[in-house]
Amino acid sequence: MMQGKASIRFQNPPHILGAGSVVGEKEGQGPLGPLFDEVEADPMCGQDNWEAAESYLQTRAAQLALQNAGCTSGDIRYLFAGDLLGQLIATSFGLKNLEIPLFGLYGACSTMGEALSLAAMAVDGGYAEKTMALASSHFASAEKQFRFPLAYGNQRPYSATWTVTGCGAVVLGRGCGKVRIAGITTGKIVDLGVKDSMNMGAAMAPAAADLVMQNLIDFDVTPEYYDKVITGDLGTIGQRALLDLLKEEGVNLEGDHMDCGIEIFDPETQDTHAGGSGCGCSAVTLCTKILRELTQGHWRRVLFIPTGALLSQTSFNEGQTIPGIAHGVILERV
Amino acid sequence: MMQGKASIRFQNPPHILGAGSVVGEKEGQGPLGPLFDEVEADPMCGQDNWEAAESYLQTRAAQLALQNAGCTSGDIRYLFAGDLLGQLIATSFGLKNLEIPLFGLYGACSTMGEALSLAAMAVDGGYAEKTMALASSHFASAEKQFRFPLAYGNQRPYSATWTVTGCGAVVLGRGCGKVRIAGITTGKIVDLGVKDSMNMGAAMAPAAADLVMQNLIDFDVTPEYYDKVITGDLGTIGQRALLDLLKEEGVNLEGDHMDCGIEIFDPETQDTHAGGSGCGCSAVTLCTKILRELTQGHWRRVLFIPTGALLSQTSFNEGQTIPGIAHGVILERV
Repeated sequence: MMQGKASIRFQNPPHILGAGSVVGEKEGQGPLGPLFDEVEADPMCGQDNWEAAESYLQTRAAQLALQNAGCTSGDIRYLFAGDLLGQLIATSFGLKNLEIPLFGLYGACSTMGEALSLAAMAVDGGYAEKTMALASSHFASAEKQFRFPLAYGNQRPYSATWTVTGCGAVVLGRGCGKVRIAGITTGKIVDLGVKDSMNMGAAMAPAAADLVMQNLIDFDVTPEYYDKVITGDLGTIGQRALLDLLKEEGVNLEGDHMDCGIEIFDPETQDTHAGGSGCGCSAVTLCTKILRELTQGHWRRVLFIPTGALLSQTSFNEGQTIPGIAHGVILERV
Repeated sequence: MMQGKASIRFQNPPHILGAGSVVGEKEGQGPLGPLFDEVEADPMCGQDNWEAAESYLQTRAAQLALQNAGCTSGDIRYLFAGDLLGQLIATSFGLKNLEIPLFGLYGACSTMGEALSLAAMAVDGGYAEKTMALASSHFASAEKQFRFPLAYGNQRPYSATWTVTGCGAVVLGRGCGKVRIAGITTGKIVDLGVKDSMNMGAAMAPAAADLVMQNLIDFDVTPEYYDKVITGDLGTIGQRALLDLLKEEGVNLEGDHMDCGIEIFDPETQDTHAGGSGCGCSAVTLCTKILRELTQGHWRRVLFIPTGALLSQTSFNEGQTIPGIAHGVILERV
């Protein structure tokens, strides 16, 4: 059911039937460590290169999500998946053996929100019994793609975030899960002219603020409607920017906002500066802390907003701005 | 309505309400030249670099599609779009001013099929009154992304195709067009181990053959059900491979197959070796020849199958294979 300008309230809200998460060692040592299904001690995951390592994370997360949902790849009608690498090669090589009809997605670090939105539409619309949404990132493949060779050992400013090594996957379907997707709000590209690729939180915050406002308007609710509003990977600087931008709109989210990039690493013992980032960041936090809090009934309803910074090495080198995008998903305890 | 393993037959088939196409000069000089809405004589489109030129093609094609559909960007609820470049930067910068909720897609050169499929699902499912599907490519931005600097002047083997400079966009909605999307078949990744990035037709043909077979099985029809089966950019070598692969399955498409990559350039006067390619190839051929033949009633029903080769510069350099994917869309004269 269309709701406002950019939102949908599902008639038959798809349930999350199972989730799977795999992360690297650093993430495993962080505050969410005990919650992940698997922690890979080897950053190469036994593969020949970083890209293949990320593909391996995808393969494993998909297998674990299927296992936890009690089904097989043959039960999944559509797969909605993506990663940060050029031409989605982590996805192409990580998921090909599943042999599931695939819609490849790119929304930068908002990809898990985009994937959940479309996967939920496919189930609610009656186009599928079960779908899978998946997103991954890998610190080393992302550094290689977007920044410098690891061996160069470049200095990172305090506004920089650390790309999460990890993949999260969820199986959606009709039926009998404990958490359902009640609705979605789909983001548009928002560009306030930020150009600093080492401060992606600031680049993405305007898109996140735009999404929050659109969601509140479309569903005609106040922030209290949600127990938490959870962004993907704004980090500490992006969080401050988001809260300030919303305050200008008369919306106070202080205390009710959580950011996956802030949750995933311990600022005291894990030096990541502004926090974690990457599509994997929000995907694995969803599959662990967010689903657990909902399942255990600590939260009744949250607005989950993976946030993406739309840049490439080429656009950065050409002096372009960094537009942002964000996709909102309303998760409810059944 | 779910149909077979990987297909949908739409209950309320979305109509194509308008289409827009913009191409480069070489495409304008080809057999489809007079049909394009605009031909850009300047390969840079007045921009500073190739990527911005491709973004310009997207902006123009979207504007033309809106104009031809008699609506404005505010009427479009969702935009499904993509290109070939890393992190979809042609799309990010080409479409940001439209301010339409965006689902960014990557399916290599199959992107127009993927975009049409999801855009049609959104309309048929009641999630949108109108949607837009769009895909672009640019010869120079693609050469820079995947191959060599243009100034290097590398020799191209006869199996190579020429990336089309162009963008095609269509507006879908309920109502009163002359062509409708009756159904879709969604492809999975198919990898027979081809590694030659200068022979992408061979890399994609297995995915196209798989899609054709799945479509015939899912809808329980024979090839005669379609006036034409139209692939995206297999080129002459990929076409031969497709026809041979289908023959092995007992399906004879000789004479009933058309490939956009073969249609778009004149082999006598335009030296492109195996034909045209790129997401723009199938997108602009759809917006011109295919829609015209349907609208004029020369064809009643076609199966349109944009085909994609899932490689990146990195995966190629790492010695990986080139998996293929294809997405099928059934287009019918209303």
